[in-house]
Amino acid sequence: MPNGRLIFARRPAGSLTVDTFRFEESEIPEAGPGQVVCRTVLLSIDPAARAWMQARTYRERLVEGELMPGHGLAEVIASGSNVPAGAIVTGPVGWQEYALLDATAVRTVEVRSVLSHYLGVLGITGITAHIGLLAVGQPRPGETVLISGAAGATGNVAGQLARIHGCRVVGIAGSSAKTTFLVKELGFDAAVDHRSRSFADDLKSACPDGVDVYFDNVGGPILERVLRAMNAHGRIVCCGGVSQYDTQDPAPGPRGVPGLLTTKRLRMEGFIVHDHVDDWPAAHSELESHVAAGRLRVIESVIEGLDRAPQALISQLKGSNLGKCLVRVGKDPEALPRVIRPAE
Amino acid sequence: MPNGRLIFARRPAGSLTVDTFRFEESEIPEAGPGQVVCRTVLLSIDPAARAWMQARTYRERLVEGELMPGHGLAEVIASGSNVPAGAIVTGPVGWQEYALLDATAVRTVEVRSVLSHYLGVLGITGITAHIGLLAVGQPRPGETVLISGAAGATGNVAGQLARIHGCRVVGIAGSSAKTTFLVKELGFDAAVDHRSRSFADDLKSACPDGVDVYFDNVGGPILERVLRAMNAHGRIVCCGGVSQYDTQDPAPGPRGVPGLLTTKRLRMEGFIVHDHVDDWPAAHSELESHVAAGRLRVIESVIEGLDRAPQALISQLKGSNLGKCLVRVGKDPEALPRVIRPAE
Repeated sequence: MPNGRLIFARRPAGSLTVDTFRFEESEIPEAGPGQVVCRTVLLSIDPAARAWMQARTYRERLVEGELMPGHGLAEVIASGSNVPAGAIVTGPVGWQEYALLDATAVRTVEVRSVLSHYLGVLGITGITAHIGLLAVGQPRPGETVLISGAAGATGNVAGQLARIHGCRVVGIAGSSAKTTFLVKELGFDAAVDHRSRSFADDLKSACPDGVDVYFDNVGGPILERVLRAMNAHGRIVCCGGVSQYDTQDPAPGPRGVPGLLTTKRLRMEGFIVHDHVDDWPAAHSELESHVAAGRLRVIESVIEGLDRAPQALISQLKGSNLGKCLVRVGKDPEALPRVIRPAE
Repeated sequence: MPNGRLIFARRPAGSLTVDTFRFEESEIPEAGPGQVVCRTVLLSIDPAARAWMQARTYRERLVEGELMPGHGLAEVIASGSNVPAGAIVTGPVGWQEYALLDATAVRTVEVRSVLSHYLGVLGITGITAHIGLLAVGQPRPGETVLISGAAGATGNVAGQLARIHGCRVVGIAGSSAKTTFLVKELGFDAAVDHRSRSFADDLKSACPDGVDVYFDNVGGPILERVLRAMNAHGRIVCCGGVSQYDTQDPAPGPRGVPGLLTTKRLRMEGFIVHDHVDDWPAAHSELESHVAAGRLRVIESVIEGLDRAPQALISQLKGSNLGKCLVRVGKDPEALPRVIRPAE
């Protein structure tokens, strides 16, 4: 039985295209001592993957010819370690059907919810939103929290968390369908479409008391505009800069840096969720309780088939997705349980 | 006896010129209840004055026809308040010989050092360096602290403080004379000339272990370059952005914002010293003890005559000054004591 894999074949010159990837088949690996062989169930599709192609980030820049890396949820099918076969794990499986990994590189999931949640709201995505918003942004009840990429995987969770924590929440998204969704379905207090000609005015109207915390997923011209709307002593959480990922030549930075940071005494801070591993259990518990109580709605799009992963990433970078984007992998996806074990 | 004053007459179109200002004479004012009339002794010349002309900052944008504002040291000559005539005070006297101020707007100076120090190292400038470096930047002993505008009023104090606190200190300045001065006279570990063609390489060589804290007085292309040199979890203290003040049309911001902030988990934070008034006494005491012990050298340039204030600011914006720039005001400057009362 072959192992289907997608290779990062060619660095994109401009926007990402399917030519970036090449499909190949290899043998399914065997587990040596301390290793596990995992069968990929779900792949997380993340805009950061485009940034990895562009430059060194918090990881080395991708090299042409390597397996396309990615985080996923998988079932252990063979083990030379104390992670048993049958365990459901998350880890850096890459864009392939079967992965050979060190057992220390995977986390065993205690499945109490829908499997896909462990890559989204109960996984790194949700924990990123939690730590970025609460530990880095430190919003106080009643403050205005503004979120860009608010209909995206991290943004929608950050916004719902801000609402739960008593803040006025305003979202920025790329279509009127999304802004309507944020307000009507997720309880945002307001949302503005950054593609609208009246964006600057709409933003002002939506934030009549200015912005205290800006959770930024996009960077670029939106960040530049938001800098002017920030209140004194505001905090800008730098979670991502997706507006600058899908190009070989990122634009200059926003005007007002450092000028407005000084005059408004702003704090602008980047973070990587992996630096906060000690806080993961608490964040996970809080998210789990909000989901269980129905306070936090889980928004995800699941696409069927590894071969559609490239198009899923391309579409995501163009802003077409809502919530967490996942690809279901496997020859027989229907046979995969959606819940392995019911909540206790 | 007339009161000579410099008026902000015309907003500069590009770089500042003497045409921006107009000299006029008025009557010396009289003190009403709660007011003091002050005779200006020394005026502080600060690059921020150019930013006030450009846009709203932490104060309203200057209006053509108003007195040129500025901080100074003055002697109270008449009082309708509990600040007695004869007191030496600092406050917003403006570019004029005599100022009428609310008594609450001035701070009485207990003179124990050279008068000029109370506008520089023992005044807002020194306290800005102290709070920015230590409270905002939070350097640890052994870390590399990089300072731009390092030969300027705030930068030289911030650098010397970092050295006193056990950091490796690297300065950026605009001439080889200045970089030599920083290393030979002020004890910086290294200094680089940002006007040199080899600036990027020189910066790397001067910071072989990267940069942990960057105290930024300039913004612009130097900030962009430094972002690449920052270590993970580094801190950027946004004190000023003088590279963008002397123009009507500030450049775009540095590339790498927010990208490098995220991937390197940087914190970039602006501050205004007036938000930290509670910390001033402790900062002042520490600075005073360093100066008294000879650990902190006081660098200042005093220019004689109010009429030379415009040229002093123009020269400062071009980068010609070393240390704190002051203008001595008064018909009879020779008669002014350099020390009012000797150190006790």
